[in-house]
Amino acid sequence: METIFSEQHRLRDAKTEFFGGELIAPHEKPSRAEYVLERIKKRQLGPVSDPQDFGLDPIHTIHDAGFVNFLQTIWGEWTTAGFKGEAMPTALPVRRMAQTCPNFVEGKLGFYANSVETSLTQGTWQAAYASAQVALTGAARLQAGAPGVFSLCRPPGHHAFADSYGGFCFLNNAAIAAQSLLDQGAARVAILDVDFHHGNGTQDIFYNREDVLFVSLHGDPLETFPYFLGHADETGKGAGEGYNLNIPMPAGTPFRIWRDALRVGLEKVRNFGADALIISLGVDTFENDPISFFKLKSDDFLTMGGDIAKLGLPTQFVMEGGYDVDEIGVNAVNVLEGFEQVNA
Amino acid sequence: METIFSEQHRLRDAKTEFFGGELIAPHEKPSRAEYVLERIKKRQLGPVSDPQDFGLDPIHTIHDAGFVNFLQTIWGEWTTAGFKGEAMPTALPVRRMAQTCPNFVEGKLGFYANSVETSLTQGTWQAAYASAQVALTGAARLQAGAPGVFSLCRPPGHHAFADSYGGFCFLNNAAIAAQSLLDQGAARVAILDVDFHHGNGTQDIFYNREDVLFVSLHGDPLETFPYFLGHADETGKGAGEGYNLNIPMPAGTPFRIWRDALRVGLEKVRNFGADALIISLGVDTFENDPISFFKLKSDDFLTMGGDIAKLGLPTQFVMEGGYDVDEIGVNAVNVLEGFEQVNA
Repeated sequence: METIFSEQHRLRDAKTEFFGGELIAPHEKPSRAEYVLERIKKRQLGPVSDPQDFGLDPIHTIHDAGFVNFLQTIWGEWTTAGFKGEAMPTALPVRRMAQTCPNFVEGKLGFYANSVETSLTQGTWQAAYASAQVALTGAARLQAGAPGVFSLCRPPGHHAFADSYGGFCFLNNAAIAAQSLLDQGAARVAILDVDFHHGNGTQDIFYNREDVLFVSLHGDPLETFPYFLGHADETGKGAGEGYNLNIPMPAGTPFRIWRDALRVGLEKVRNFGADALIISLGVDTFENDPISFFKLKSDDFLTMGGDIAKLGLPTQFVMEGGYDVDEIGVNAVNVLEGFEQVNA
Repeated sequence: METIFSEQHRLRDAKTEFFGGELIAPHEKPSRAEYVLERIKKRQLGPVSDPQDFGLDPIHTIHDAGFVNFLQTIWGEWTTAGFKGEAMPTALPVRRMAQTCPNFVEGKLGFYANSVETSLTQGTWQAAYASAQVALTGAARLQAGAPGVFSLCRPPGHHAFADSYGGFCFLNNAAIAAQSLLDQGAARVAILDVDFHHGNGTQDIFYNREDVLFVSLHGDPLETFPYFLGHADETGKGAGEGYNLNIPMPAGTPFRIWRDALRVGLEKVRNFGADALIISLGVDTFENDPISFFKLKSDDFLTMGGDIAKLGLPTQFVMEGGYDVDEIGVNAVNVLEGFEQVNA
């Protein structure tokens, strides 16, 4: 399987994450991608290619223009204002507040944030832009006939909404790739999100649409991040009714139970009649992940890849989360190898 | 003028405030109240009395029961969860998210927060409870016939909504006092908020009501905290239409301009026919305040107090913000002395 990868990811190298009332070294760090790349090379998974540059247009098909401009300009405004830390908001426009974007940089941050652990830093926009191009290039490979491709995106994307960042995500790579497939002729695209955390941004982006099915298996949002989306009763709206499936699961969920949920998700994808499948590939379902609570073991990721392959759909894997850095390479590449073994 | 004050305020002694992407020593700290108290004694303003304890019932007339329970229990849950910093949220339920309170402490914090700079700490509930009693005791004095009274509340209250904390505020002292006056026979109460920051919590609490007029003079929310309420076009809703007046002003506003706005606000109060007036007394309009941008000088606060007194209404002053600690005593007590000089 070909991997698309950009060295530009290293430009996202934040010093701080806001966690547990402290500023800590970020869970989402450059070494995550490096470990995955190393493992790809060690296992000789296939060629590793640079992304093409598709420009801003495909990003604007998903994201609000004001939000994209914000991501491009915010670091300059923040440093001009004289703040000393990395850029993070204070007030956010929660219930019953006015949804008007302020002029001052601190207010803009709050307006465009959906969570506050994630700092904006010099280089974040460049890395997020490159990560979206990695996703778009993967979609182009699928379009050109590849049965499978791996977009080793970093920073991740599934917590990015059309108009907000958060959860270590800035641009929604999987959503941008899905829209690109549709724009190039696919009638229906399914996104299956196997990251431990609910893909709240992806759900919201396609919530009213029937041409993109979103299925997410994740930790119950009553118990874990992102908390405010991912409930089982969120099934889509309007034309999108029935095209959103959430399967939240409790702390301690082992692979046996998780795989039952995967089966339900895959069945939903099969019945949808997708032309292509995008996997939001987080491996923070791993038993030793520091910020998650499922109990998958490394071998389980091989099985997961095999189960996905049996759908027989052109499949693009888009990297999302996974924070046990030592094992992220093994676990992510196990999914890809499990997929290849069935597909071979 | 009598001052109501509780030593319990010292139990609110946070170590951290989230500001500019850093954790800093809080602007809202115990010495603020101590400086004001010192000045009251130095100027022999009048007796300083302990609050009576009116219990939880009057707090529940304003605040959601789930929110009050959250304030009482959150610190225990936070420490049990093993977090190391003071209690602060990550994800908040912004636009298009589910408005369901999570079970896990970090999610609860996000559900009940309207901004994230303010930590919850051991002792915060006890101090906030005492601060509300200081407000209630002041209201009782007005009810008993006092022409003026000063509730030296700390922590402050005007950024507390019925169901959320933020901006250094937990319980909305001014709102609780206003409701208490109504419950004891007043037909109409006016709240005039002269704090530099918009009283977003107070506005929201009374936004649909015609028995409480809310008038706020403040820094334009497009440019400063709390950012997402305080615009001039917010005039009330339903029965409350016309009973909310915001006068946002730009950076650098001097007292000459500010006093014109005060005149408009006082005229609104006069026409409303209030039985009593509550002043949300922040003195962060002062020219040297570290987090504000108006240009009032210490003498201007004397004039402000005099202007307010000329309304001739029974008036309760409720302490809100003001962060230039050296001058907070002089400026706050100047308002009270200006009021007394006209009233004498």
